[in-house]
Amino acid sequence: MAQISTKPASGMRDFLPAQARRRNHVFGIIREVYESYGFEPLETPSMERLSTLLGKYGDEGDQLVFKVMKRGNKFEKARNRCQGGEDLSEVDFADMGLRYDLTVPLARIVAQYQNDLPAIFKRYQMAPVWRADRPQRGRFREFYQCDVDVIGSTSMTVEAEVAGALSEVLGRLGFEKFRIHINHRQLLDAMLDNAGVPAKLRQDALVAIDKMDKIGVEGVVKELNERGLSQSAIDGLMPLLEQAAEPAAQVGEFDNEATLAALEAQVGHLESGQTALRELRNVLAFASAGPAADHLYLDPSLARGLSYYTGPIFEIRSDDFAGSLGGGGRYDDLIGMFSKRSMPACGFSLGIERILVLLEERGFMAEQSAGADVLVTLWNDDFTPNSFRLLNEFRQAGLRADLYPDNDRMGKQFGYADERSIPFVAILAPDELEQGVVAIKDMKSGEQEKVARADVSEWIRARLAE
Amino acid sequence: MAQISTKPASGMRDFLPAQARRRNHVFGIIREVYESYGFEPLETPSMERLSTLLGKYGDEGDQLVFKVMKRGNKFEKARNRCQGGEDLSEVDFADMGLRYDLTVPLARIVAQYQNDLPAIFKRYQMAPVWRADRPQRGRFREFYQCDVDVIGSTSMTVEAEVAGALSEVLGRLGFEKFRIHINHRQLLDAMLDNAGVPAKLRQDALVAIDKMDKIGVEGVVKELNERGLSQSAIDGLMPLLEQAAEPAAQVGEFDNEATLAALEAQVGHLESGQTALRELRNVLAFASAGPAADHLYLDPSLARGLSYYTGPIFEIRSDDFAGSLGGGGRYDDLIGMFSKRSMPACGFSLGIERILVLLEERGFMAEQSAGADVLVTLWNDDFTPNSFRLLNEFRQAGLRADLYPDNDRMGKQFGYADERSIPFVAILAPDELEQGVVAIKDMKSGEQEKVARADVSEWIRARLAE
Repeated sequence: MAQISTKPASGMRDFLPAQARRRNHVFGIIREVYESYGFEPLETPSMERLSTLLGKYGDEGDQLVFKVMKRGNKFEKARNRCQGGEDLSEVDFADMGLRYDLTVPLARIVAQYQNDLPAIFKRYQMAPVWRADRPQRGRFREFYQCDVDVIGSTSMTVEAEVAGALSEVLGRLGFEKFRIHINHRQLLDAMLDNAGVPAKLRQDALVAIDKMDKIGVEGVVKELNERGLSQSAIDGLMPLLEQAAEPAAQVGEFDNEATLAALEAQVGHLESGQTALRELRNVLAFASAGPAADHLYLDPSLARGLSYYTGPIFEIRSDDFAGSLGGGGRYDDLIGMFSKRSMPACGFSLGIERILVLLEERGFMAEQSAGADVLVTLWNDDFTPNSFRLLNEFRQAGLRADLYPDNDRMGKQFGYADERSIPFVAILAPDELEQGVVAIKDMKSGEQEKVARADVSEWIRARLAE
Repeated sequence: MAQISTKPASGMRDFLPAQARRRNHVFGIIREVYESYGFEPLETPSMERLSTLLGKYGDEGDQLVFKVMKRGNKFEKARNRCQGGEDLSEVDFADMGLRYDLTVPLARIVAQYQNDLPAIFKRYQMAPVWRADRPQRGRFREFYQCDVDVIGSTSMTVEAEVAGALSEVLGRLGFEKFRIHINHRQLLDAMLDNAGVPAKLRQDALVAIDKMDKIGVEGVVKELNERGLSQSAIDGLMPLLEQAAEPAAQVGEFDNEATLAALEAQVGHLESGQTALRELRNVLAFASAGPAADHLYLDPSLARGLSYYTGPIFEIRSDDFAGSLGGGGRYDDLIGMFSKRSMPACGFSLGIERILVLLEERGFMAEQSAGADVLVTLWNDDFTPNSFRLLNEFRQAGLRADLYPDNDRMGKQFGYADERSIPFVAILAPDELEQGVVAIKDMKSGEQEKVARADVSEWIRARLAE
């Protein structure tokens, strides 16, 4: 066999144990929180029919779907057509594709199992997706997405629940000063209406406003002008532009009530404005008893890729890091794509890979690096059943316990514990057995101490919890 | 958009929440046990270079690897060659393939990261693999494998640990009467040597013996004859054949000591026999203090696909179900395939999809079907913040709590709890709030009871634990 590269394929990643454990730990927290909020897990296959995937993500998206080759006769048929001179494209050689996101599979599920699913379907899915993007720093071809969606209710309790679950997840992961920016698609509509922006220029106007971070008020005004907005429309938008230009308030210093009052004055006379303000007030009121209370930040300038949102929209930001940790909102038509039914839906996609990078940078979960809690050393073959008995006691006490498999010298056995970041080594030799003790070496301090056999699991557990 | 099928693609499966939750529950137990045994998680990418995968599984295996299409220029190049009349095969159009098993990726990891991995590398991986098999009942194109392997030690403590971990997993999943059949490659060699079977007929003889279940002693003798074994070799094999023909002993009635003594008499004079018996004795002694003690069953007729095993081999069977729940053993050369180094290794692959089917059939984990522990009903918008407060109390007490999002009539809200198998509904209306109670409806019995607000989480938790 020729020597071949053993690196992961381009854009793919290997996760060695310490990192895999940290990722699993984060996934476990998210899973636990989402389930405590009544979200249920859904698992869809990695591969979908090409016809399911294509035409949903635009031309560029279609390009980025990884396509799986036809096999056997079906492949040969395509090849023969190609050999015959036909101008076949990638799609002619493929019959399946790898999942590109978690939304299209959800839409398929909702269409396929509508009679089996509850009237209100709350699901989370945390799974890899694949995109044939050009790999670059921080961008991979296989990465996890983590979505929650609620299908079937128009109630604002749904938005409050989604915001609560997100806040609980981020709080449990050690994030403190994050803001959940919230706005409403119809509020933006009302503000644009109110300023006299014609319907056909709305999207243009929002794209320009969304650039505030980069080009400032003057830049936005210039661009609005170039995009054909009248001076009076631009004047009408000035309160919104000025609001968007201000730095966001800090957690604990939000004054959503004042923002609501100001908005009421601006667009309260429009029906769309009334609806939006009522719904936003409800979200804020419903969320006030839960973990999102301090994090929801009413931000009338939040736009997001507005094309399919129809109600409240969200985005998580913080002054502690650049960019967003995820976004979402209410959308009506997407989920019905396979059944041609309009279905109320609200979803949020947590930027899980970004969160994992931030947690790694912050050294969060360093304790997850340990390959086990305690390593039992090995004395010799005849004595080994005694080592196994100790090992079992540790495991029955809920500790992750490993055994060094060979009767190497102690230094080597300690070295192995060190290599795997195992914090404690339990030494059991004939002397210790006779005395009813175990010698425990603390790998961090290097200190060694004899502990009564009956107390040793509790002793280790107490130190792990320190 | 044309109406397209919303079924999963051929050989793929959707797991709706109740089933996804049961699968996750089982995966969680396996993960917890393996980690308590010091096995560490490894995550490898779904896609590997085609050159990594091909040539490792035989011609048939190569066919079954799902191939991922080249993209852009690389695709066009292949297409142009094909249009030019070249006789291209599937492989010319593809550059990656989907993971076919977890062993080849492990071998790649060991070669790539040899300096980063501990001297003894204990890893588990529980992940989907993909095979382009013809789908049929119980056979899928995407399915989970669950492997543990220990690389780097020749100690029999490794075998004892693997057997212990497996027994703990199966026990925690409610299996009781399983046997871990254990044999040794060199013991089989010794028995065949002893009977005078020439080396070149060994594999043939073992293939025949492995058919005992189906064709009985007479059938095996006939086949041995046809495969060219002499009558004296067949006579020499009779004790082994008769042993293989006997039904396996029941858990609790094994007499491994007697088997060892009989084997000692048969092959104790051969070096390979001595080695095998010493190693088997060690595995049994080391495992005697742990959960595998009652399950390890010395079975000199266990053969398994012997081609790459070099030491002890295992297979899990039971009289309670047909077939095996997994198998494994010690192998020396496989892991070094990418580095051309021989490395001692012992691994076991648990038949996780088979286990999941058995658990479903037995109704194990029915309690995992509930979409939440308790559903809080909704009264009306003004009152809703009160519902959220109760919801939060439940969650802080560790319950999975959901809120019905709309103020529909109670019957509909109960119906929704029923649909999602939620066992308790918590009714909070102005009366209950004033009285400091919550009305709890037990969905199974239909009974409703008022419980003091301060006690309600504990009240539910106690009933869930019943």
